[in-house]
Parts: sequence; structure tokens; C-alpha cells
Amino acid sequence: MYRTHNCGELRIKNINTEVVLSGWVQKVRKLGGMTFVDLRDRYGITQLVFNDETDADLSEKAQKLGREFVIKITGKVTERSSKNPDLPTGEIEITVNDLEILSKSEIPPFTIEENTDGGEEIRLKYRYLDLRRPNVQKGIILRHKTTREIRNFLSNKGFLEIETPFLIKSTPEGARDFVVPSRMSEGKFYALPQSPQVFKQLLMIGGYDKYFQITKCFRDEDFRADRQPEFTQIDCEMSFVERDDVLTVFEEMTKHIFKKVMNIDFPETFPRLKYDEAMEKYGSDKPDIRFEMKIHEISKSAKNKGFKIFDDAEYVGAICAEGLASYSRKQLDKLVDFVKRPQIGAKGLVYVKYNEDGTFKSSVDKFYSAEDLKTWADTLSAKPGDLILVMSGNKKETLTQLGELRLEMGDRSELRDKNKFAPLWIIDFPLFEKDEETGQLHAMHHPFTSPKISDIELLDTDPEAVKANAYDLVINGNEIGGGSIRIHNTEMQEKMFEHLGFTKEEAEEQFGFLMNAFKYGAPPHGGIAFGLDRWVALLNGSESIRDVMAFPKNNAGRDLMIDAPSEIDKQQLEDLHLTVVKKF
Amino acid sequence: MYRTHNCGELRIKNINTEVVLSGWVQKVRKLGGMTFVDLRDRYGITQLVFNDETDADLSEKAQKLGREFVIKITGKVTERSSKNPDLPTGEIEITVNDLEILSKSEIPPFTIEENTDGGEEIRLKYRYLDLRRPNVQKGIILRHKTTREIRNFLSNKGFLEIETPFLIKSTPEGARDFVVPSRMSEGKFYALPQSPQVFKQLLMIGGYDKYFQITKCFRDEDFRADRQPEFTQIDCEMSFVERDDVLTVFEEMTKHIFKKVMNIDFPETFPRLKYDEAMEKYGSDKPDIRFEMKIHEISKSAKNKGFKIFDDAEYVGAICAEGLASYSRKQLDKLVDFVKRPQIGAKGLVYVKYNEDGTFKSSVDKFYSAEDLKTWADTLSAKPGDLILVMSGNKKETLTQLGELRLEMGDRSELRDKNKFAPLWIIDFPLFEKDEETGQLHAMHHPFTSPKISDIELLDTDPEAVKANAYDLVINGNEIGGGSIRIHNTEMQEKMFEHLGFTKEEAEEQFGFLMNAFKYGAPPHGGIAFGLDRWVALLNGSESIRDVMAFPKNNAGRDLMIDAPSEIDKQQLEDLHLTVVKKF
Repeated sequence: MYRTHNCGELRIKNINTEVVLSGWVQKVRKLGGMTFVDLRDRYGITQLVFNDETDADLSEKAQKLGREFVIKITGKVTERSSKNPDLPTGEIEITVNDLEILSKSEIPPFTIEENTDGGEEIRLKYRYLDLRRPNVQKGIILRHKTTREIRNFLSNKGFLEIETPFLIKSTPEGARDFVVPSRMSEGKFYALPQSPQVFKQLLMIGGYDKYFQITKCFRDEDFRADRQPEFTQIDCEMSFVERDDVLTVFEEMTKHIFKKVMNIDFPETFPRLKYDEAMEKYGSDKPDIRFEMKIHEISKSAKNKGFKIFDDAEYVGAICAEGLASYSRKQLDKLVDFVKRPQIGAKGLVYVKYNEDGTFKSSVDKFYSAEDLKTWADTLSAKPGDLILVMSGNKKETLTQLGELRLEMGDRSELRDKNKFAPLWIIDFPLFEKDEETGQLHAMHHPFTSPKISDIELLDTDPEAVKANAYDLVINGNEIGGGSIRIHNTEMQEKMFEHLGFTKEEAEEQFGFLMNAFKYGAPPHGGIAFGLDRWVALLNGSESIRDVMAFPKNNAGRDLMIDAPSEIDKQQLEDLHLTVVKKF
Repeated sequence: MYRTHNCGELRIKNINTEVVLSGWVQKVRKLGGMTFVDLRDRYGITQLVFNDETDADLSEKAQKLGREFVIKITGKVTERSSKNPDLPTGEIEITVNDLEILSKSEIPPFTIEENTDGGEEIRLKYRYLDLRRPNVQKGIILRHKTTREIRNFLSNKGFLEIETPFLIKSTPEGARDFVVPSRMSEGKFYALPQSPQVFKQLLMIGGYDKYFQITKCFRDEDFRADRQPEFTQIDCEMSFVERDDVLTVFEEMTKHIFKKVMNIDFPETFPRLKYDEAMEKYGSDKPDIRFEMKIHEISKSAKNKGFKIFDDAEYVGAICAEGLASYSRKQLDKLVDFVKRPQIGAKGLVYVKYNEDGTFKSSVDKFYSAEDLKTWADTLSAKPGDLILVMSGNKKETLTQLGELRLEMGDRSELRDKNKFAPLWIIDFPLFEKDEETGQLHAMHHPFTSPKISDIELLDTDPEAVKANAYDLVINGNEIGGGSIRIHNTEMQEKMFEHLGFTKEEAEEQFGFLMNAFKYGAPPHGGIAFGLDRWVALLNGSESIRDVMAFPKNNAGRDLMIDAPSEIDKQQLEDLHLTVVKKF
């Protein structure tokens, strides 16, 4: 037997018990005729003690243990003379009478501690050692708890978890598919799912009115920071529902998770914000509402005062950063640099200091009187001591830029507390977005999203004005989930594909099976999908989703530990009827 | 609102309630001035009634409903005059006052009933319709329940469900990998996992001492009956355990599933049978022990009586089919044909009828006296009225053939009751099996399986005699799960690869990361993996695992519904640096 207890459970009440423990050696130290070993497993740390005089041989063996050796010991639980209140097991130690080395360890390439000395690349290469660090463990365990609670909640509501296939059909829609060459069908390929979207709709047509699945999805994207080629989705769908039925269930699920996993209550109903309003107020369709600092339009009072930049602008808007009127020239210059970064792409920034003494100091004093500036301040409900930041230009772009600036100011004022969570629903998204270059419409969510019934008549006359019956769950500026009521009849789906620039043949070839399925009694249905990785990262207070994945890939999509992707042998390529074309 | 209730829940206690129901039209019939519609969803069927006289318009609308139309109705629950005791809702019906057609249906290509008129191909093509059939639903719901109980059981035992990656590295070991070409790394490929084996071992090294995962695995095999290119595994691993620790946990899990999902109790401990004994007694390493009919060796009494076939044979063995001494010539000939089928490959069969009157009649009366045959009968504990079937040849082959014959006789005598379940453990498998042609040893389970400690000394001298610390869970002749205690040190793993014919370089290239991981403190560990599809099919009484998968592929690995695999466009191929080589 390797253990009677784990390394986190022994307490003062266990004194005099004979125990067997196994684990990893965290630390060995000699102190006043005694040798102490900290033994670690995922449950905790227990102190082992060896008496250098009474059992010299065993003590010497203990002194020779290296970091990360795996050992098994037998001993008796004894009360510590000097207790450690920081450790749950800190009142006891084990007086060891037998020690067996199960497995030696070379010196690990970085320290296995919360604050490690290892950089990300080396930690990914030795991910099995990184996984031993308590903070990484915390994320992995949190992920387990979260999925468990989701499954319990949905199962108790009558949802069935149903597995949909991974080897499916490539559809040149959305992101790029990963494909899988078929050996049996020469020259043909499966594709890995970007989401189970079509299958869950087919399940609705199949009569499984409440479906969910926690499953991997795949996107072959050009890798960006914090994207992974494979990620996990909580995929849900319901039949015979309207939007509010869906929101009710998944708002309850969200509350359930926060309660069960984090012990956080949300007594109130989540706010619901229309897309247009979110853009106007927060410059984002995933607003962080942990803090106010809303965007206000001041076009009316800013224009026609001789300041050409504002006069030429479609839109002038501002935010008010509370208490920052004392910002120095240098601090303000840095803000200008911030909004000029290519990621934001603004041309500049106008500031207005509403000084404590009630006077104004701005970068546009030449054009605006104190009275003018007071009008802005009033629009923004600014108080003396506040800093007003103004941007202008094309309305859509300026709002987005103000949104970014708002988040930056929120960070600077420490208004974005990691331990505070502010969920809300965004509703009434546009059905389409227009490619500015080609003029082609794209589906904002996906081509299966139903328009709002009240807007259907606009489909032919003014498609850009049509709102979708779609919704996102947003928490702390992150899009945690998104979904919609779907189209459930062939005619509407065909019209949708038409608007999206599909020919009849293309639509038929790619989605014929779905449109065919609509012909055999499709129920009204809708659903939602959540990004599990992002959600758990948020709960865990992690910046990166890599922190809550056991074996993540790096930003270039490589698994540094197993060295994948890699070359395959010639025979395998031949069996797949493929050759690699090397570029020179 | 689409519904206040589902179609399976209304009872006599709901009488006079105003309800809204939605569902599919199962059947419409006119009877004595009334029109009846059976409305169906996955919860059941509720009868709707329309009075042709008092509400002629509505009644006419109802009469025009086709099979599988999706409708929504409003009405009042009323007591039926003629009740249907076969239906949970059979005491009530809904007197409809409003009817809305949500979705029409063309005439389905087969009937949506338990006994359908659709062949398998058409049902796979229209799988979304097949999924509406109550028996298919039963399997899908059973699968959900089973995975739910597995997750609950293991989570309650402290196991963590941890996701391992899908885009991994190709290893030319075991079956063929499906591969995924990388767009970002020219000429390189990911592989889809055949199992998470290596990753779960790395999790053990990472300190996650109780891991499980219910996950998809992939094997690019030449398709055989009832194999699927993607299948689902319940993958489990534990650290600091010996074999019996693993068997104890997963025997308890098995009992839990049977209890919770099927309400079947197994009060006794599962039998444990050594591999050698299973082969000798049942001619199979996955014996069906729902019935006895064990194999007995009769070489000693059968040889040296002048019957050349037996004299030349390495082994003569027999089974006793109770009460079948009355088998006709024709029936016996059919048995001979059965064993001569290429799948079994025997040359023939000797029968001995132990007649009710105590006399013997056999196909070898020329060589054996009644006394000789009585000796065989005694060895087999045969009684008057029984039929003894004898086969001979190479020992291993003959045992396997007798094993097949035993199953056939079990079927004929209806000893293999679908509703009876007989689980057992098979233990002490050989570590290696030899390729008879090349003489090369292969791992019987996989190359990470540890030999039994007592056999380690035989590794160099007589590797074929070495037993593995491996085990299978077998139920009703199906291998439901298999696992082992793993190797956890570099030297042993290197020796194992050597025996398996890997060069040092090959081992390093393919499994270097694992052997490297062993150098940093690997705990003793072991685990097991179960085939979920097979297990659920068994519980469901299904012949095929396709019955319990929502969207199975056909035996050629094609998804007939979405038409995959399929061609991909030129640009996609180019992006992947690939060309297809057509064979002529």
C-alpha cells in the first residue's frame, strides 16, 4: 500500500496514528539535530521529521533526498513543538520510521513553486512539471468544478448531453477549418468542427428539445495572443423557445456557477443592453460594466466653434475620468500615445481638466470658452477635479476608440477589480455587418441566426438595419457566451444565404442537408454557446486561457512538450494520397 | 409561449387545466364526428381531440395535418371516455381550441416508429428523422444517464476530469493515426489521439493523482462491422496504486452504473480469471460467463486409439451442450459448416451423442468404444441427453475455435439472455504477443504496461512467459474496459521499447518527452479505459454501437447525412502545402 492518507489531511486529531504517505519532496532541511522534509501532493504539504541521533541511518537517507524525489514513508503522527499556522497540516508532523524512494528526480529546470523562475517557453516544454505548481493546479481544479456544476445544472433541468461528431465536412464559412485527409476515400477530407452548430440544430429537428455538450472545437486561425487552435465550448440548444426562455435558463446557470464555484451571489437580474446602446455608451459590444465612465456624445456643443477637427467630424464624444484633473503634461502625452497606437488608431485626443477650483484647462482653450467647456462637463456629469477626454471622427470608429480609452482609464483608476464580476446580456445585434471594401454582407453571428420578427420586412429593403434575434453574455468586458434564435424554415434560410452572397448551388452543396432537414418538421429553436476556457480563466483571475488548460499550445500553435506538429513518414503520406509541396 | 407542458406529463389530476402544447403530429384519424391527433415529443404522446361539429373549421385544419408537422395547440385537459392503459397520458386528452402550424413536413422517407420500414442507409442519411424514433431516443438518453453517473461517481471519489489535447503528435504505434496538416508549419502534421494514454501518464507525473476524462478517440482502421473511426473512451488513471486499488474503484463504478442506470444489483465481488485460465476454459480472453459449457481437454483419453486426426493433434478439447443429444444429422452438419467458416477456420468437428438411454452415438464410433466415450463424458460431467462436441489441432487455435463454438451453442440454447449481465475481470495477460511471421514481439496491451514484478527476471531470458500487470473488464463476452499498472521509470521503459524492436533513436523520437518526464519524479501509477459506446450498447441491448451514437458513420467511415469526407477547394489545399496524388 502506497498511502493511508494524502499530504493535506492529517490534523491534530490524528495524533499517534500510524500512517503511510507518498508524495514529492518539496524541501529538505537540517535543524538542531533533526532533519525535516516537506512532502507534497495535490492535497497539501505534510512535514516529516527524522531524528539525526536516534535513527542516524534513516536521517542520512532523508538528507540525501533531492527536490521532486517521489518517496513513500511510514511513521507516526506527532504534535509539532513549533506549529505553522499558515499550513492546514501545520499542527502535526510525521515521525518517520521507514522511508522508500519510489522515483528519483534530476534537478528540475525551474522551481516548482507559485512564483517560479521559469519563463513560459520552458514551462510549456516541461508542462508536466509546471502542472505541479499550486497556482496551475488551482486553475485545473477550478475547471473541473465548473464543468461539473454546469453538467449538474443542465442535467437537472432535463438537458441531455449528446456527442456530435468530430470528423465532419469542411465548410468555407467563418474561420478556416482544420482538415483530416481520408485514406479510404482518395482525395477527400473530413473537417474538424468549428462548433457543433449544425449538428445541434439537427438534434432539435430530431426532437431532442434540450441539448448540451461540453466539447472541443477547432479553428485554424493565424495565431494571436491568447488564441488556441483547439478550445472548449459549452454548447446548448433548446426547442420551442423564444429568446427570453433561453436567457432565463442560462442566466440561472451563470448564477449557479458563480454560487457553487465561487460562492458569489447575484441577487439581481442581469442587465440587458441593446447592441446600439452598448456601442453608444461603452464603445464596445462587450462592455465592462464594473465601472461607469460612460461615453457621451458632445457633437452639438463641440461643433461650429471654429475647431476644424471637430467641425469636420461626424461624431464628437467624451468620457469623464473621475478625480484625474491633476494629470501632468507627461501623463496626458502618454494617453495621446496610447490612443495613437495602431491597435486603436486614433489621430489624437483632446483633454479638459475641470480643476478643483472650478476653472477649466483644456488643449482646445483657443476655441472653447469656459462656458462651452462647462456644457461638456454638464453633459458628462463631471465634477471639479475630473478629467474629460474627448475624441472625434467617424462615429463607429470613434466610439470604439473611446471604448478602448475608457478601459485604459478604468485600469489606471483601478476600477477593474479581478474579484468583482459584472455580467450582462447584450441583445438586438445587427443581423449583418458589411465588408467596407467589397460591400458584401456577412452574418454578424452566423448564417443560421434568425432576424427579429419585427424586422423581417426590412430584409429586402434595408438589410443593414435588420436586427438579429441574437444575444451575448458579457462579463467584465469578456464575451463569455453568444447565441440566437435560429432560422427554422427553408425559405428564410435560403433568403439568408442569398443575402450573404451564396449562390443557390453553393448553399445547396454546403448546407443542403440542413435545408433538407427543415422540410421534415423543424421546431422553432434557439441556443447559446459559451467559451469554457475564457470563463474559467475569468473565474481564476487568469490573464490567459493557457493558464486553465492542462496542455496548451504556444501562440504559434505548437505543443512544445511533445513537439507537434511534426513530420510524418513517407508511407503515411502515400497512404493518404498526398504529397507535400515545398515552397522555395 | 410555445408550451406549458410537454407531451408526456399530463394526467387525470390536470383535468380542466388550460394548456399549451407543441410537438410533432404522429397520427391523425377521424372517428364518429371527432378528429383525433396524436401529438408527440421526446417525453411522450398526448391525444388531441377536435369536435367536427361544434368547431368545424378547426377540425378541418386538424384533418389536413400531415405526419411530422410541427404544431402548437391551446386547449383544455379533459378525461377520455375510452382510456388507453398503454399510454402514461392515456386517461386524458386535450380538447383543442386553437391550433397553429409551426412547421410543415413533407412525407418522411420512412415511418417514424419503433419498427420502421427504413433500411440502415436511408436512416443514416436522414439521421435527424431516425433520431425521432422512440428506440433510438432510448439509447441516446441511456448514454446521457450513463455518462452522468460515471462523472458523478468519479467526481465524488476525488477524480478530476481534465481535458487532454486533440491536436497531438503522430506515433506509428498501434492502429493508424488520422492526421491534420498544419498550415502554419509547412509539411508538418498534427495527429488525432488514438487514446489520451501518454497525456494521462504525464498528468500523473504532474501530480494529479486521480484523473478521468470522457473523450473522443480516433483510429484510421480498415473499417469492419461495428467499428467507427471516432469513438468515445472513459479514460481513467490513478497514482500511488497497485492493481487491486484500481480494480476496487472501477468495480465499484461498474456496480454504481448498473444500479443507477439499470437498477441491477451485483451483491458479489466480480470473479477474477487469469488469462491462461480464460483461454483454457472459454477459448477466449473475453468469456461470456452467463452460461457454463466450459471447455475440457480430453487429449489424454482421445489419443492413441488409432484416430489419426486426434493422434496428430497437439490438443483435443470438447464442450458439452446440455440436452442436445437429439440433434439431427442436418443440425450436426450445420454445426460442421459453422466451424468451417473462414472466420473460425476449423477443419471439422466430432460429435458424441450421450443418448437418454445411456448409450453413445458418435462420428468416431470406429475408433472409440462406449467406455472410451464414457470417459470423455465424465470429464465433461455430461449426462444422458447431452451432446459432446470435440475439436482438435494446434492448442491455441483449437481453444479459440471451441470458444466460438461454445458461443454458438449458447445462442442456440438461448443461454445468452440480453437482460442478464455477467461481469468479470481477466488478469495476468501475457506482456507480449509474438508475430508468428516475423517473430517480432508486440505489446499485448500497449508499450507502457508494466510486467508483473515477479516476472521481471524473465524479461531477458523468456520474454514470452512474462505476464503483464494488466486487466480487462469483460461483460457478456464484450471487452468493456482494459488497463494496467504502468511502467514509471526510464530504464524499464527503454528495455520495453527494445523488446518491441524500437531502436534507441525511434524510441527517443516518438516517446522522448515521456521518458524525459520519468526523470523528474514519476509516481507509480496505473489506470483503465472503457469503451463507452460498447458499454452503452450492451446496457441498451443493442447489437451495434451505431445505435447509441447520435450521428454514426457507416461501415465505410462515411457520414451519409452530411456527405463527408468530401473534396476541399484548391485554395485550401494550397494553403496546406499539399497536392492530391491521383492513382490511375
